[in-house]
Amino acid sequence: MKTAGVAVIGFGTVGTGVVRLLMEDGRRLAKTIGCRLDLRHVCDIDLERHRNVDVPREILTDNPDVCFDDPEVAIVVETIGGATVAVDLMKRALAAGKDVVTANKAALAERGNELFEAARAAGRSISFEASCAAGIPIIRAIRDGLIANRLTAITGILNGTCNYILTRMSSTGATYDDALAEAQARGYAETDPTLDVSGEDARHKLAILAALAFETQVTLDDVYVEGIVGVSPHDILFGSQIGYVLKLLAIGRRAGDALSLRVHPTFVPADSPLATVSGADNAVLVTGHAVGDTFYVGPGAGEMPTASSIVADLADAALGRAQLTCKHLAWPAGRCPALRVQSVGEIAARYYLRFDVVDQPGVLAEIAGGLGRHDISIASVLQHEPTRCGSVPLVITTHGAREGNMESALAEMRELPTMAGPAVRIRMLEEKREASP
Amino acid sequence: MKTAGVAVIGFGTVGTGVVRLLMEDGRRLAKTIGCRLDLRHVCDIDLERHRNVDVPREILTDNPDVCFDDPEVAIVVETIGGATVAVDLMKRALAAGKDVVTANKAALAERGNELFEAARAAGRSISFEASCAAGIPIIRAIRDGLIANRLTAITGILNGTCNYILTRMSSTGATYDDALAEAQARGYAETDPTLDVSGEDARHKLAILAALAFETQVTLDDVYVEGIVGVSPHDILFGSQIGYVLKLLAIGRRAGDALSLRVHPTFVPADSPLATVSGADNAVLVTGHAVGDTFYVGPGAGEMPTASSIVADLADAALGRAQLTCKHLAWPAGRCPALRVQSVGEIAARYYLRFDVVDQPGVLAEIAGGLGRHDISIASVLQHEPTRCGSVPLVITTHGAREGNMESALAEMRELPTMAGPAVRIRMLEEKREASP
Repeated sequence: MKTAGVAVIGFGTVGTGVVRLLMEDGRRLAKTIGCRLDLRHVCDIDLERHRNVDVPREILTDNPDVCFDDPEVAIVVETIGGATVAVDLMKRALAAGKDVVTANKAALAERGNELFEAARAAGRSISFEASCAAGIPIIRAIRDGLIANRLTAITGILNGTCNYILTRMSSTGATYDDALAEAQARGYAETDPTLDVSGEDARHKLAILAALAFETQVTLDDVYVEGIVGVSPHDILFGSQIGYVLKLLAIGRRAGDALSLRVHPTFVPADSPLATVSGADNAVLVTGHAVGDTFYVGPGAGEMPTASSIVADLADAALGRAQLTCKHLAWPAGRCPALRVQSVGEIAARYYLRFDVVDQPGVLAEIAGGLGRHDISIASVLQHEPTRCGSVPLVITTHGAREGNMESALAEMRELPTMAGPAVRIRMLEEKREASP
Repeated sequence: MKTAGVAVIGFGTVGTGVVRLLMEDGRRLAKTIGCRLDLRHVCDIDLERHRNVDVPREILTDNPDVCFDDPEVAIVVETIGGATVAVDLMKRALAAGKDVVTANKAALAERGNELFEAARAAGRSISFEASCAAGIPIIRAIRDGLIANRLTAITGILNGTCNYILTRMSSTGATYDDALAEAQARGYAETDPTLDVSGEDARHKLAILAALAFETQVTLDDVYVEGIVGVSPHDILFGSQIGYVLKLLAIGRRAGDALSLRVHPTFVPADSPLATVSGADNAVLVTGHAVGDTFYVGPGAGEMPTASSIVADLADAALGRAQLTCKHLAWPAGRCPALRVQSVGEIAARYYLRFDVVDQPGVLAEIAGGLGRHDISIASVLQHEPTRCGSVPLVITTHGAREGNMESALAEMRELPTMAGPAVRIRMLEEKREASP
């Protein structure tokens, strides 16, 4: 049986998961894959910390060159993360003739083309199933399983921390701060949750999935982003009363040669499959011209789900499939054009609006008239009983309207003397018939 | 750019979809895949029927040898179906040095080992993404994406016709016959729906998925099957009242070296992701030791969804990945042991029972006592008001009980003088903690 030498660089949570799978399931994996994955080196700057997995002392090293210089190492797993040191290490691994497997979304989203170029120059491969939606094999689904399709839409829940927080707010009525604290207590959110709750993490993942799905150059700047910080339980409640669930969605659309890419809190119809994805799970809904809609759900983070995808990539590289993928398919092979990316102002969406207004006659007419003047058509109105002395929440949903028009309308509304508080605007997932960007 | 010659044998619905994709999207596919798929022959015994796709007359043939003898043909697509002629044709294609792509679940489930052996002897590949769940890339997910996992459970909705019928019965209260007639009118069921509604179609697909997932020899006889014929709208209604949705599930479980494989109507908790899969869609919930649960949903039939998966396999074969897969992975490489398959009598499940009983004192005690004597513990009781003169439906759910015990208990119950009609028994999807077979 074939053997492929493996080096793991980065012995943190994910690296530990990979080492655990290779150590504990090595014999079974060899039988399944038809190739032995021989773990030869585990490299980290910190070799003392206890990792809860037994590794022979002699394969530990703090010098990555040990991995690159070992001719028996065929594949280097990079689990350091970030778009600086990790990218340098991956390029050195490629230059040393190793295939690379990584979970590094930042490296792929920010410097993917550079990495693929290095892989082409070296005649090696980079595999990155674990970079998006951890345990869900969504890269393979889009890259291989749906390759026959002109893909027109990707709609994803790509950040488990945000989905956990929003799920708790929906099910318990908790405030954002309380739900975040609970997520932190349960290990679903970092002590500094900024990357997750700002939407940046989902933005990186959407950049990768969109480049693959739409076969185009995507930079981070192409992806509009709004996070979930300070989302109000009132809006989650009012949304549920009109049949919607709040999710942080990553939305990519392609129509002809125009792309739109955005990450923002979004009201999803309660009967949409996306609405049923709860807790820290991730999910991706992919639409293609031949297959229609396919939907993928699973754990979006965690040691073993991420390791599951990394070891799947190891199998691909060990068998030689990863090299064929990288050599031929459009994105890694460098055959993707840059499509025009719509600015957020051009995008049309339906909106949920909440105004806290003074409880006096004529207010609804005033607001409805203002929206109409900006070409925004009202779909539904929900006026609640007063919650505070003198002010009432007025919830309005609109038909599809241009983001630019909405901004102008809201700027005007905020000046009205009848406004008792800030106006809230949350986008709604478009209907199928409005799916074009 | 590389070119791979393709021949399609079988110009029915699915073959037409493949031809359409190759004709209409050829240029784009070449750019995406990095290899031109050159459609050289389309073979069928009926060349006169109109297919709604333009094919150059000169590539049509009614002689499969034309495909096998053309040295420019690298890949033969088989879309005839069935486990006789189609298998012979695939073996001839392999012997002629062609890779094979097929949507043929019967051939794979009944004669898969024989086909893989022929592929090994010829040094070629067989790909069969379209054989299960049409457009969902579930073969790739299990075979490649989740390869690092010890998979313990597959739970699938694998027949769109049955799911459509059950969805309509649930949502409209229709009888089985009316829902079937509606499915036929809408093209979701054949004029002779036997293969679908008997559960045989799902049985074939489960045999394939289980062999892949559990890396074992599976024969059709290993898979217990009950179809949906004559399912009563009363049970669907009573089930919904206690929080369950009726689905035809294909269930595969592996615990250690024991397997259980069965297809039968099953009550699924309404909050399970499987319960949300409606209409003609298919879905598969896969459980692995590292990744946990991942869930896949999409169209389970149809010309273009099936063609989508076939063309994905064409890409794999054209790039040379399919050959590596077939050469190395356990099932195609012939490295799967036969695990012990539990007889249905050994399997433990929860049960929904409905008895039509005479409305008189002591009946519930009699039935409860009878179940208890067979070691069957009651979880809930729902006694409805009388529906017919003198008889009442009595709905009981049980905790996990052995199928064998249940059979004995029901045989005894049927003899009771208080029984006014047949006893209905429907299995319930086990809780997570009862997931072992």
